[in-house]
Amino acid sequence: MTKTVEFFYDFASPYTYLASTQIEEICKHHGAKLQWRPFLLGAVFKASGNVPPSQVAPKAQYMLRDLHDWAEYFEVPFKFPSTFPPNSLKSMRAALVAEREGRLVPFSHACFKAFWVEDRNISESDVIAAIGEQVGIPREKLLAGVEEPEIKDKLKANTEEAVARGAFGAPAFFMGDRLFWGQDRLVLLEEALK
Amino acid sequence: MTKTVEFFYDFASPYTYLASTQIEEICKHHGAKLQWRPFLLGAVFKASGNVPPSQVAPKAQYMLRDLHDWAEYFEVPFKFPSTFPPNSLKSMRAALVAEREGRLVPFSHACFKAFWVEDRNISESDVIAAIGEQVGIPREKLLAGVEEPEIKDKLKANTEEAVARGAFGAPAFFMGDRLFWGQDRLVLLEEALK
Repeated sequence: MTKTVEFFYDFASPYTYLASTQIEEICKHHGAKLQWRPFLLGAVFKASGNVPPSQVAPKAQYMLRDLHDWAEYFEVPFKFPSTFPPNSLKSMRAALVAEREGRLVPFSHACFKAFWVEDRNISESDVIAAIGEQVGIPREKLLAGVEEPEIKDKLKANTEEAVARGAFGAPAFFMGDRLFWGQDRLVLLEEALK
Repeated sequence: MTKTVEFFYDFASPYTYLASTQIEEICKHHGAKLQWRPFLLGAVFKASGNVPPSQVAPKAQYMLRDLHDWAEYFEVPFKFPSTFPPNSLKSMRAALVAEREGRLVPFSHACFKAFWVEDRNISESDVIAAIGEQVGIPREKLLAGVEEPEIKDKLKANTEEAVARGAFGAPAFFMGDRLFWGQDRLVLLEEALK
Protein backbone atom coordinates (compact mmCIF):
# COMPACT_ATOMS: atom_id res chain seq x y z
CA MET A 1 0.00 0.00 0.00
CA THR A 2 1.34 3.44 -0.89
CA LYS A 3 2.18 5.55 2.13
CA THR A 4 1.09 9.17 2.24
CA VAL A 5 2.93 12.03 3.90
CA GLU A 6 0.96 15.18 4.66
CA PHE A 7 3.09 18.30 4.88
CA PHE A 8 1.51 21.14 6.87
CA TYR A 9 3.39 24.35 6.18
CA ASP A 10 3.42 28.13 6.51
CA PHE A 11 5.70 30.37 4.45
CA ALA A 12 6.55 32.35 7.60
CA SER A 13 8.59 29.47 9.09
CA PRO A 14 12.28 29.22 8.17
CA TYR A 15 12.58 25.61 9.34
CA THR A 16 9.61 24.80 7.12
CA TYR A 17 11.33 26.38 4.13
CA LEU A 18 14.32 24.13 4.83
CA ALA A 19 12.05 21.09 5.07
CA SER A 20 10.34 22.06 1.80
CA THR A 21 13.66 21.68 0.00
CA GLN A 22 14.02 18.06 1.20
CA ILE A 23 10.63 16.42 1.50
CA GLU A 24 9.89 15.74 -2.19
CA GLU A 25 13.15 13.84 -2.64
CA ILE A 26 12.50 11.82 0.52
CA CYS A 27 8.98 10.85 -0.52
CA LYS A 28 10.12 10.02 -4.04
CA HIS A 29 12.96 7.88 -2.71
CA HIS A 30 10.59 5.86 -0.53
CA GLY A 31 7.75 5.72 -3.06
CA ALA A 32 5.44 7.72 -0.80
CA LYS A 33 2.72 10.12 -1.88
CA LEU A 34 3.17 13.73 -0.71
CA GLN A 35 0.28 16.08 0.11
CA TRP A 36 1.05 19.79 0.54
CA ARG A 37 -1.29 21.30 3.13
CA PRO A 38 -1.14 25.05 3.77
CA PHE A 39 -1.99 26.11 7.33
CA LEU A 40 -1.51 29.16 9.55
CA LEU A 41 1.32 28.76 12.02
CA GLY A 42 0.36 31.75 14.19
CA ALA A 43 -3.04 30.16 14.83
CA VAL A 44 -1.35 26.81 15.60
CA PHE A 45 0.85 28.46 18.24
CA LYS A 46 -2.18 30.14 19.80
CA ALA A 47 -4.38 27.04 19.82
CA SER A 48 -1.68 24.70 21.13
CA GLY A 49 -0.22 27.02 23.77
CA ASN A 50 3.21 26.69 22.18
CA VAL A 51 5.66 29.61 22.22
CA PRO A 52 7.25 30.75 18.93
CA PRO A 53 11.03 30.21 19.23
CA SER A 54 11.62 33.79 18.12
CA GLN A 55 10.01 34.97 21.37
CA VAL A 56 12.70 33.43 23.59
CA ALA A 57 15.67 35.79 23.23
CA PRO A 58 18.61 33.34 23.42
CA LYS A 59 16.74 30.85 21.25
CA ALA A 60 16.10 33.51 18.61
CA GLN A 61 19.79 34.35 18.70
CA TYR A 62 20.73 30.67 18.35
CA MET A 63 18.28 30.17 15.47
CA LEU A 64 20.08 32.66 13.25
CA ARG A 65 23.21 30.55 13.19
CA ASP A 66 21.34 27.24 13.34
CA LEU A 67 19.30 28.03 10.23
CA HIS A 68 22.42 28.82 8.24
CA ASP A 69 24.03 25.61 9.48
CA TRP A 70 21.05 23.58 8.29
CA ALA A 71 20.99 25.37 4.93
CA GLU A 72 24.64 24.50 4.48
CA TYR A 73 23.98 20.92 5.60
CA PHE A 74 21.14 20.57 3.07
CA GLU A 75 23.13 22.54 0.48
CA VAL A 76 20.33 25.02 -0.22
CA PRO A 77 20.39 28.83 -0.41
CA PHE A 78 19.17 30.78 2.62
CA LYS A 79 19.09 34.43 3.58
CA PHE A 80 17.31 35.72 6.67
CA PRO A 81 14.73 38.25 5.39
CA SER A 82 14.63 41.87 6.47
CA THR A 83 10.89 41.78 7.25
CA PHE A 84 10.63 38.90 9.76
CA PRO A 85 8.13 37.88 10.98
CA PRO A 86 5.91 38.41 7.96
CA ASN A 87 2.14 38.36 8.01
CA SER A 88 1.64 35.18 6.02
CA LEU A 89 -2.16 35.10 6.11
CA LYS A 90 -2.69 36.36 2.56
CA SER A 91 0.05 34.22 1.05
CA MET A 92 -1.29 31.08 2.73
CA ARG A 93 -4.76 31.83 1.39
CA ALA A 94 -3.15 32.42 -2.00
CA ALA A 95 -1.65 28.93 -1.77
CA LEU A 96 -5.18 27.53 -1.57
CA VAL A 97 -6.17 29.54 -4.63
CA ALA A 98 -3.11 28.09 -6.35
CA GLU A 99 -4.27 24.61 -5.27
CA ARG A 100 -7.60 25.17 -6.99
CA GLU A 101 -5.70 26.20 -10.13
CA GLY A 102 -3.56 23.06 -9.95
CA ARG A 103 -0.44 25.13 -9.14
CA LEU A 104 -0.06 24.49 -5.40
CA VAL A 105 3.43 23.00 -5.42
CA PRO A 106 5.15 25.43 -7.81
CA PHE A 107 3.45 28.38 -6.10
CA SER A 108 4.57 27.14 -2.67
CA HIS A 109 8.17 26.62 -3.74
CA ALA A 110 8.15 30.07 -5.33
CA CYS A 111 6.80 31.70 -2.15
CA PHE A 112 9.32 29.95 0.10
CA LYS A 113 12.12 31.02 -2.24
CA ALA A 114 10.83 34.58 -2.54
CA PHE A 115 10.87 35.05 1.22
CA TRP A 116 13.75 32.86 2.44
CA VAL A 117 16.21 33.39 -0.40
CA GLU A 118 15.27 36.58 -2.25
CA ASP A 119 14.04 38.71 0.68
CA ARG A 120 10.80 39.62 -1.06
CA ASN A 121 8.07 40.66 1.39
CA ILE A 122 5.33 38.03 1.04
CA SER A 123 3.06 40.03 3.34
CA GLU A 124 2.32 42.30 0.36
CA SER A 125 -0.39 41.61 -2.22
CA ASP A 126 1.78 42.86 -5.06
CA VAL A 127 4.55 40.41 -4.22
CA ILE A 128 2.08 37.53 -3.87
CA ALA A 129 0.49 38.41 -7.21
CA ALA A 130 3.88 38.56 -8.91
CA ILE A 131 4.76 35.11 -7.53
CA GLY A 132 1.41 33.82 -8.79
CA GLU A 133 2.13 35.18 -12.28
CA GLN A 134 5.56 33.48 -12.19
CA VAL A 135 3.78 30.13 -11.93
CA GLY A 136 0.99 30.92 -14.37
CA ILE A 137 -1.84 32.22 -12.21
CA PRO A 138 -3.39 35.45 -13.51
CA ARG A 139 -3.03 38.32 -11.03
CA GLU A 140 -6.74 39.14 -10.83
CA LYS A 141 -7.69 35.52 -10.24
CA LEU A 142 -5.25 35.19 -7.36
CA LEU A 143 -6.10 38.48 -5.66
CA ALA A 144 -9.85 37.92 -5.96
CA GLY A 145 -9.45 34.33 -4.72
CA VAL A 146 -7.78 35.27 -1.44
CA GLU A 147 -10.88 37.29 -0.49
CA GLU A 148 -13.32 34.41 -1.04
CA PRO A 149 -15.00 32.98 2.07
CA GLU A 150 -14.45 29.48 0.67
CA ILE A 151 -10.68 30.02 0.58
CA LYS A 152 -10.60 31.63 4.03
CA ASP A 153 -12.61 28.75 5.48
CA LYS A 154 -10.35 26.17 3.86
CA LEU A 155 -7.23 27.66 5.51
CA LYS A 156 -9.02 27.73 8.84
CA ALA A 157 -10.13 24.13 8.41
CA ASN A 158 -6.62 22.93 7.51
CA THR A 159 -5.22 24.70 10.58
CA GLU A 160 -7.87 23.35 12.93
CA GLU A 161 -7.40 19.85 11.55
CA ALA A 162 -3.64 19.97 12.15
CA VAL A 163 -4.11 21.17 15.73
CA ALA A 164 -6.77 18.53 16.37
CA ARG A 165 -4.31 15.90 15.14
CA GLY A 166 -1.63 17.13 17.56
CA ALA A 167 0.39 19.77 15.68
CA PHE A 168 1.91 22.59 17.74
CA GLY A 169 4.49 24.00 15.33
CA ALA A 170 5.86 23.76 11.80
CA PRO A 171 6.77 21.94 9.71
CA ALA A 172 4.28 19.28 10.79
CA PHE A 173 4.43 16.03 8.84
CA PHE A 174 1.79 13.38 9.32
CA MET A 175 1.94 9.76 8.25
CA GLY A 176 -1.53 8.61 9.25
CA ASP A 177 -1.80 9.50 12.93
CA ARG A 178 1.96 9.84 13.42
CA LEU A 179 3.34 13.37 13.68
CA PHE A 180 6.89 14.36 12.80
CA TRP A 181 7.74 17.90 13.83
CA GLY A 182 10.60 19.83 12.30
CA GLN A 183 13.20 19.52 9.55
CA ASP A 184 15.29 17.71 12.17
CA ARG A 185 12.76 14.84 12.29
CA LEU A 186 13.06 14.05 8.58
CA VAL A 187 15.48 11.25 9.56
CA LEU A 188 12.74 9.71 11.72
CA LEU A 189 10.14 10.17 8.99
CA GLU A 190 12.49 8.31 6.67
CA GLU A 191 12.78 5.47 9.18
CA ALA A 192 8.99 5.26 9.30
CA LEU A 193 8.79 5.21 5.49
CA LYS A 194 11.19 2.27 5.20
CA MET B 1 44.92 21.78 17.00
CA THR B 2 42.68 19.43 18.97
CA LYS B 3 39.07 20.57 19.09
CA THR B 4 37.19 20.45 22.37
CA VAL B 5 33.47 19.78 22.81
CA GLU B 6 31.90 20.83 26.10
CA PHE B 7 28.77 18.86 26.97
CA PHE B 8 26.46 20.63 29.42
CA TYR B 9 23.96 18.13 30.80
CA ASP B 10 21.33 17.43 33.43
CA PHE B 11 20.12 13.91 34.27
CA ALA B 12 16.52 15.17 34.24
CA SER B 13 16.52 15.65 30.45
CA PRO B 14 15.57 12.67 28.26
CA TYR B 15 17.02 14.20 25.10
CA THR B 16 20.26 14.70 27.00
CA TYR B 17 20.32 11.03 27.98
CA LEU B 18 19.96 10.17 24.30
CA ALA B 19 22.81 12.55 23.40
CA SER B 20 24.98 11.05 26.15
CA THR B 21 24.82 7.69 24.37
CA GLN B 22 26.24 9.22 21.15
CA ILE B 23 28.65 12.01 21.97
CA GLU B 24 31.69 9.97 23.02
CA GLU B 25 31.71 8.02 19.77
CA ILE B 26 31.34 11.23 17.76
CA CYS B 27 34.21 12.98 19.53
CA LYS B 28 36.39 9.89 19.27
CA HIS B 29 35.65 9.56 15.56
CA HIS B 30 36.68 13.17 14.92
CA GLY B 31 39.62 13.17 17.32
CA ALA B 32 38.01 15.81 19.54
CA LYS B 33 38.36 16.16 23.29
CA LEU B 34 35.12 15.86 25.28
CA GLN B 35 34.43 17.73 28.52
CA TRP B 36 31.45 16.65 30.63
CA ARG B 37 29.94 19.67 32.37
CA PRO B 38 27.06 19.12 34.82
CA PHE B 39 24.57 21.98 35.06
CA LEU B 40 21.04 22.53 36.32
CA LEU B 41 18.46 22.61 33.54
CA GLY B 42 15.66 24.08 35.67
CA ALA B 43 17.82 27.10 36.40
CA VAL B 44 18.72 27.40 32.71
CA PHE B 45 15.03 27.50 31.75
CA LYS B 46 14.37 30.17 34.37
CA ALA B 47 17.34 32.35 33.47
CA SER B 48 16.80 32.13 29.71
CA GLY B 49 13.02 32.54 29.70
CA ASN B 50 12.64 29.27 27.81
CA VAL B 51 9.63 27.01 28.42
CA PRO B 52 10.21 23.32 29.25
CA PRO B 53 8.67 21.25 26.44
CA SER B 54 6.78 19.19 29.00
CA GLN B 55 4.76 22.29 29.89
CA VAL B 56 3.14 22.56 26.45
CA ALA B 57 0.50 19.82 26.43
CA PRO B 58 0.60 18.67 22.77
CA LYS B 59 4.42 18.91 22.77
CA ALA B 60 4.62 16.73 25.88
CA GLN B 61 2.34 14.23 24.18
CA TYR B 62 4.50 14.28 21.04
CA MET B 63 7.72 13.88 23.04
CA LEU B 64 6.67 10.51 24.41
CA ARG B 65 6.63 8.96 20.95
CA ASP B 66 9.51 11.09 19.66
CA LEU B 67 11.86 9.94 22.44
CA HIS B 68 11.16 6.29 21.68
CA ASP B 69 11.71 6.95 17.97
CA TRP B 70 15.13 8.50 18.70
CA ALA B 71 16.08 5.67 21.04
CA GLU B 72 15.25 3.20 18.27
CA TYR B 73 17.16 5.32 15.75
CA PHE B 74 20.23 5.41 18.01
CA GLU B 75 19.68 1.75 19.00
CA VAL B 76 19.78 2.44 22.74
CA PRO B 77 17.43 1.32 25.51
CA PHE B 78 14.86 3.84 26.80
CA LYS B 79 11.96 3.67 29.21
CA PHE B 80 10.06 6.75 30.33
CA PRO B 81 10.39 6.85 34.13
CA SER B 82 7.45 6.79 36.52
CA THR B 83 8.74 9.80 38.51
CA PHE B 84 9.11 12.50 35.84
CA PRO B 85 10.16 15.24 36.27
CA PRO B 86 12.72 14.34 38.92
CA ASN B 87 14.43 16.82 41.21
CA SER B 88 17.92 16.47 39.82
CA LEU B 89 19.65 19.00 42.09
CA LYS B 90 21.28 16.45 44.39
CA SER B 91 22.33 14.12 41.60
CA MET B 92 23.91 16.97 39.63
CA ARG B 93 25.84 18.04 42.73
CA ALA B 94 26.83 14.40 43.16
CA ALA B 95 28.24 14.46 39.64
CA LEU B 96 30.61 17.22 40.74
CA VAL B 97 31.69 15.14 43.73
CA ALA B 98 32.29 12.28 41.29
CA GLU B 99 34.36 14.66 39.15
CA ARG B 100 36.58 15.41 42.14
CA GLU B 101 37.00 11.66 42.63
CA GLY B 102 37.95 11.17 38.99
CA ARG B 103 34.69 9.27 38.32
CA LEU B 104 32.61 11.90 36.51
CA VAL B 105 31.99 10.01 33.27
CA PRO B 106 31.13 6.56 34.70
CA PHE B 107 28.95 8.18 37.37
CA SER B 108 27.12 10.25 34.75
CA HIS B 109 26.47 7.30 32.47
CA ALA B 110 25.25 5.30 35.47
CA CYS B 111 22.85 8.09 36.53
CA PHE B 112 21.44 8.52 33.03
CA LYS B 113 20.93 4.77 32.78
CA ALA B 114 19.42 4.50 36.25
CA PHE B 115 16.78 7.10 35.44
CA TRP B 116 16.10 6.66 31.71
CA VAL B 117 16.42 2.89 31.44
CA GLU B 118 15.94 1.37 34.88
CA ASP B 119 13.32 3.76 36.32
CA ARG B 120 15.26 4.35 39.51
CA ASN B 121 14.35 7.63 41.20
CA ILE B 122 17.50 9.77 41.08
CA SER B 123 15.83 12.43 43.26
CA GLU B 124 16.56 10.18 46.26
CA SER B 125 19.82 10.21 48.20
CA ASP B 126 19.80 6.44 48.62
CA VAL B 127 19.58 5.88 44.88
CA ILE B 128 22.33 8.43 44.20
CA ALA B 129 24.56 6.81 46.83
CA ALA B 130 23.97 3.35 45.35
CA ILE B 131 24.93 4.63 41.89
CA GLY B 132 28.05 6.18 43.40
CA GLU B 133 29.01 2.86 44.96
CA GLN B 134 28.50 1.13 41.60
CA VAL B 135 31.28 3.30 40.17
CA GLY B 136 33.54 3.10 43.20
CA ILE B 137 32.67 6.18 45.24
CA PRO B 138 32.11 5.44 48.96
CA ARG B 139 28.58 6.28 50.08
CA GLU B 140 29.62 8.64 52.90
CA LYS B 141 32.01 10.56 50.68
CA LEU B 142 29.33 11.17 48.07
CA LEU B 143 26.55 12.14 50.48
CA ALA B 144 28.80 14.47 52.48
CA GLY B 145 30.16 16.00 49.27
CA VAL B 146 26.77 17.07 47.93
CA GLU B 147 26.30 19.27 51.01
CA GLU B 148 29.59 21.14 50.61
CA PRO B 149 29.34 24.83 49.66
CA GLU B 150 32.20 24.32 47.20
CA ILE B 151 30.19 21.70 45.29
CA LYS B 152 26.98 23.75 45.39
CA ASP B 153 28.85 26.81 44.10
CA LYS B 154 30.47 24.82 41.31
CA LEU B 155 27.10 23.64 39.98
CA LYS B 156 25.78 27.19 40.12
CA ALA B 157 28.88 28.48 38.33
CA ASN B 158 28.60 25.87 35.56
CA THR B 159 24.94 26.77 35.07
CA GLU B 160 25.55 30.50 34.99
CA GLU B 161 28.43 30.06 32.59
CA ALA B 162 26.28 28.04 30.17
CA VAL B 163 23.50 30.65 30.28
CA ALA B 164 26.01 33.48 29.79
CA ARG B 165 27.34 31.66 26.72
CA GLY B 166 23.83 31.37 25.23
CA ALA B 167 22.39 28.07 26.47
CA PHE B 168 18.61 27.92 26.97
CA GLY B 169 18.04 24.15 27.14
CA ALA B 170 19.75 20.76 27.16
CA PRO B 171 21.79 19.10 25.93
CA ALA B 172 23.97 22.14 25.19
CA PHE B 173 27.18 21.42 23.31
CA PHE B 174 29.78 24.12 22.86
CA MET B 175 32.68 24.12 20.47
CA GLY B 176 34.39 27.35 21.46
CA ASP B 177 31.67 30.00 21.17
CA ARG B 178 29.43 27.86 18.97
CA LEU B 179 26.39 26.31 20.60
CA PHE B 180 24.68 23.14 19.38
CA TRP B 181 21.40 22.47 21.14
CA GLY B 182 19.79 19.04 21.22
CA GLN B 183 20.51 15.45 20.21
CA ASP B 184 19.09 16.46 16.82
CA ARG B 185 22.02 18.88 16.28
CA LEU B 186 24.67 16.18 16.62
CA VAL B 187 24.76 16.04 12.80
CA LEU B 188 25.66 19.74 12.72
CA LEU B 189 28.23 19.31 15.48
CA GLU B 190 29.80 16.58 13.38
CA GLU B 191 29.93 18.91 10.38
CA ALA B 192 31.71 21.47 12.53
CA LEU B 193 34.18 18.84 13.75
CA LYS B 194 35.16 17.82 10.21
